Amino acid sequence: MRQTLDGNRRALAQLISLVESNPSSAAELTAELHARGGRAAIVGVTGAPGTGKSTLVNELCKSFRRDGCRVGVIAVDPSSPFSGGALLGDRIRMRDLAGDDGVFIRSMATRGNLGGLARATADAVRVLDAAGFEMVVIETVGVGQGELEIARRADTVLVVEAPGLGDEVQAMKAGILEIADILVVNKADREGADDTVRALRAMVNLGSPLAGDRTDAWRAPVLKTVAVKGTGVADVAESIARHRGYLERSGTGTTRRRLRAADELETILRDLLLERGMQRISRVELDTLVERVAAREIDPYAAACRLLGAPI
Amino acid sequence: MRQTLDGNRRALAQLISLVESNPSSAAELTAELHARGGRAAIVGVTGAPGTGKSTLVNELCKSFRRDGCRVGVIAVDPSSPFSGGALLGDRIRMRDLAGDDGVFIRSMATRGNLGGLARATADAVRVLDAAGFEMVVIETVGVGQGELEIARRADTVLVVEAPGLGDEVQAMKAGILEIADILVVNKADREGADDTVRALRAMVNLGSPLAGDRTDAWRAPVLKTVAVKGTGVADVAESIARHRGYLERSGTGTTRRRLRAADELETILRDLLLERGMQRISRVELDTLVERVAAREIDPYAAACRLLGAPI
Repeated sequence: MRQTLDGNRRALAQLISLVESNPSSAAELTAELHARGGRAAIVGVTGAPGTGKSTLVNELCKSFRRDGCRVGVIAVDPSSPFSGGALLGDRIRMRDLAGDDGVFIRSMATRGNLGGLARATADAVRVLDAAGFEMVVIETVGVGQGELEIARRADTVLVVEAPGLGDEVQAMKAGILEIADILVVNKADREGADDTVRALRAMVNLGSPLAGDRTDAWRAPVLKTVAVKGTGVADVAESIARHRGYLERSGTGTTRRRLRAADELETILRDLLLERGMQRISRVELDTLVERVAAREIDPYAAACRLLGAPI
Repeated sequence: MRQTLDGNRRALAQLISLVESNPSSAAELTAELHARGGRAAIVGVTGAPGTGKSTLVNELCKSFRRDGCRVGVIAVDPSSPFSGGALLGDRIRMRDLAGDDGVFIRSMATRGNLGGLARATADAVRVLDAAGFEMVVIETVGVGQGELEIARRADTVLVVEAPGLGDEVQAMKAGILEIADILVVNKADREGADDTVRALRAMVNLGSPLAGDRTDAWRAPVLKTVAVKGTGVADVAESIARHRGYLERSGTGTTRRRLRAADELETILRDLLLERGMQRISRVELDTLVERVAAREIDPYAAACRLLGAPI
């Protein structure tokens, strides 16, 4: 496996697919990959559509590369140019990264089961981490609950906002600010940028009553960028490095790693429980009961209990 | 229960909470509610943040009320004024509906488990349907996968777009257009509205090759509205009525009801399987294994298998 991990991009992509698609046949592989990992800094980048987070990720990658880091990008956002879903301009911008062997991009299909997506993302991180990528960036669209869950398990969580989207309120409601280690107001050359910054700073201050009493606590900085011009991106990269230092110094890093392990284990447990449980259910009986539920002869709870062969 | 269903709003809200919170203790109730239902027209309204779908829902409700329908609204969208999460202007607009006994609004918390949310939404629909609301509108933010799944099980799915959000591409990628029975370009007094309409019409035509061959097939209309002024809302209401006619005429309604029953049954099965499975797992052993996964002594797949007491 060492050859594969040190080897070319195609081998790496195949390894991720293998681990993702069939964890049981890849059990030995997963054990070895997991044992080798734990060195990569995992950065989650999330925000509403239209905030320009893909462009920011692109610029951050270039910044990390200038520092000599190898960078892996996992794009869960369907609008990301990394997933192939963006406008032409975005695609042209991200061509900067193409052909650089120090950058590996993996796009994740967001259709279908989100549980499966969380697991697949964790698997991809495991491979990239074991392969020696120092930075792994997970980009997710920060609106759906499931997508948010994926981002929040990173070491450092960046939440990207933009002026004039009405997203301050949006974000606050969805709990997205609570998970932010670093807040970025992108498109900061637009009207209203300073208002957005002020609103976010006020919320950060409100949201961290403990932080005021502890000088060693992390208070999420609110940074301005114009990612299309590269403006402010160095500050974001520096904040990520500072946050990494904080994680190690404060012990928060250990807590996060434990939470991530718990989360990953629970995700796999859920997948396995569902898989095994559904296998035990008779397909014929299920189809019959669906018809009866649709005909309103039985309610779905009663039908589920009948299938599982016991009272709720 | 008849009294409750015919009774006041508070009793109705309590009934929904009861059914949601504890389906097992409410088993008898659920059976009766399910048997009584099946008459309401369920309309799903989804779209990206900023499209103004809440305002549209508000105007649609007023239109349904003018036709003498009782209307239930289930708001899963955290930015919806119905969920209490919108700007002041939106709240003022939706005050039109307050105090009208023919309108019942239920807001759903989007924090936490989406599986639970799908189930809770179905439960709320069941109660409102049984209580004789002729129209039930489910409003969800159309970006997350889970939220989309909730909307798609309606009888009629409205997808709301707005010019200049770059959402055409966004929506296409997320599969949101595929589930649309009616497409609405809201904020149609903005620049670029006609371009958005044209783009959507082209996609509808592309996406329905079969429709060209079958004169009885439904082709999603693309309608323009300016919901804040009420413009075009009557056309949307009329399209919903036409679609309802189509559902009954074509047998598509029966198919949708069966899919909804299958979906609901599967959601409940999953919830029950997970609940029962997790109960069997030793909490102490789980905690120990989380520590070992975090310390990279064991990988999460192997840990999950150990907890479940069998190979994957």
